Amino acid sequence: MKARVTVTLKTGVLDPQGKAIEGALKSLGVDGIDSVRQGKVFDLELGGADKAAAEAAIKAACDKLLANTVVENYRIEIL
Amino acid sequence: MKARVTVTLKTGVLDPQGKAIEGALKSLGVDGIDSVRQGKVFDLELGGADKAAAEAAIKAACDKLLANTVVENYRIEIL
Repeated sequence: MKARVTVTLKTGVLDPQGKAIEGALKSLGVDGIDSVRQGKVFDLELGGADKAAAEAAIKAACDKLLANTVVENYRIEIL
Repeated sequence: MKARVTVTLKTGVLDPQGKAIEGALKSLGVDGIDSVRQGKVFDLELGGADKAAAEAAIKAACDKLLANTVVENYRIEIL
């Protein structure tokens, strides 16, 4: 089974990396992009066929390691 | 207009960061996740209302800065 986890910063949390990308795009002459926020994506492969067990394992992985839930949200998609 | 760009490593490109996450998940006792590959996600806000112009600007941003097209693929979604 394949799954994708997308981790993004919560609204209101400053994103200096995104701001740096905005500045770099302006320097490179790419116009029309007003704001950039960067996040992370994790493509997972899971062995079992049980969807509920897979979701539980992914949720544990997100809470323990993949996302810092103080400042980040995560979204799980089973593909 | 909002858009999301997802940048992932091409198939066959080694991902040491993903391997490190796999190892860390095993150490943390999260079972059932066989493989992890990490990518990046960029949430963009664009000023104009012209979808074609927005896509062109995002494509330029990806080719020039957001993705290293030698080893990475990117996918653009207009939201």
